[in-house]
This record gives sequence, structure tokens and C-alpha cells, in this order.
Amino acid sequence: MAAAGAPPCIFCEIVARRSPAYIFYEDATALGFLDIFPFTRGHVLLVPKRHVDRLIELPEADQGPFLRALATVCRRVERLSSHYNVALNQGALAGQIVFHLHFHIIPRYDEGNPFGVRSRERLRDDAAASVVAALAPP
Amino acid sequence: MAAAGAPPCIFCEIVARRSPAYIFYEDATALGFLDIFPFTRGHVLLVPKRHVDRLIELPEADQGPFLRALATVCRRVERLSSHYNVALNQGALAGQIVFHLHFHIIPRYDEGNPFGVRSRERLRDDAAASVVAALAPP
Repeated sequence: MAAAGAPPCIFCEIVARRSPAYIFYEDATALGFLDIFPFTRGHVLLVPKRHVDRLIELPEADQGPFLRALATVCRRVERLSSHYNVALNQGALAGQIVFHLHFHIIPRYDEGNPFGVRSRERLRDDAAASVVAALAPP
Repeated sequence: MAAAGAPPCIFCEIVARRSPAYIFYEDATALGFLDIFPFTRGHVLLVPKRHVDRLIELPEADQGPFLRALATVCRRVERLSSHYNVALNQGALAGQIVFHLHFHIIPRYDEGNPFGVRSRERLRDDAAASVVAALAPP
């Protein structure tokens, strides 16, 4: 939850189902959904449900479950590609935009470096549905 | 350990203290040392002592301790900068070069994007000693 009076945290809003997202993973403490401006097909985010800004603020009891969730998401992403980047950006100078802890998982294909693109296209419903289906449990 | 007959894994050699490294963190299951071709000052790596290539191969019992180690390393890196990237590259197309699981932790400063540099300079002893001192326990 954001502080009273502050604008709501967009990822908390997604966790609370008050904002839409293409959700493909959920457990007791973590939620996985698609990045709405993906670098590549299958670019997803994993967040803890409880609001923390940084990994160092994640309660110790949540550390094991959160890494297990990350490994599970990686295992699913391997359905798309066995090559992928996992990235956590902490602080504005590191590219953090939403200040709610989130790991990016970005499949890589034989297409060169996707990170230099200046204008990322917004994810379309049909493309999103195809990725959510590919990453669905089990 | 690498398979018999295969070249030894360089990170296993560092864990076994058969190859040198600038080590700044150690616990029962993980080792932290400096990247020898750093993108920025304080660019470090965290590896599990037991050889696995990928996060999805990390034994479940090691997941909690490994994320705790990663959070501890992040906390120490915040002595250098509160802005940093945490990155795990899996697979050659994602930039993985050493096939022993390792997270990069890369402090960011107000100096623009350091990742486009083509020729990274090898870490010098004096620069390394300064970083190891800054990241030393507690």
C-alpha cells in the first residue's frame, strides 16, 4: 500500500485487482504478469504482493518463497526460450520506474540486442493472450 | 564441479580457492567476488558454491539462503550507491559466458549508461582493494 495521500502504487493496484494486467502466475506472496511495454515476446514481471520498494526490504520469511516463485517463472519462460535475462533495477539511475520491487524476466531470441529500441510498442491483447497461454500452469 | 575431462569451471575454481579472486562475501552456500571486467566501480558477482548452471537448478533448500545472500550483498552495495542493477543472464543469447549461476550486482552512478562500452578495462589491484574494503562485513 502506498502512503495515505500518495498516488496509489500501480503494482499494488494490480495485486488488488483494481487495475488490469495480464496475470500468468500467482502464489500466496507473489504475482507474475506481463510487462505492458515488452522488450521481447514473453517479457514478464514478478512482484511480491506486499509492497516493498527494494529487495533488501523483503521480509526474511518471504525470501525463500520469492526465489522459488522466480525459479518457477523462469522454468515457464523456458517454454519460450532457454535464453533470458533476469533483471532487478533499484533506484532511478538504474532504470527503476515503479517503486515496488519487481524482477523482469526477458526471453531472448536470435534477434540481437532488444534493449536499444527507443519506442517500445504497447502490448496488444492478442499477443498478450498468446503469451499468457504459453506461460500458464502447470 | 565440471564433468570429468571438461575444462574446469572458473567459478568452481574460485570457490575452491584454486583461482584468485577479489572476494568480499562468503557464507555456507554462496560466494561474492568482484567482476574482473567491471561495468562500473563495485560491479560484483554472487555465485552458489555448488555448481549449477541455472537458477531453476538451484536446490529448493538453497533458495532462501541464496536470496538472503543476494539481499545482503545489495545492502553492502548501497554503501557505494543506492542505485544498482541486479542481473542474471541465462543462456548464450542472453549474454551468459560462464555457465555457473551468477548474479551481477552493478552500482549505477550519475554517469549515463555504462553497458554500451565495447572494451571494458580489466580491474586493477588498487581499485579492487578499495572496493573490497568498502564492501567488507559487517
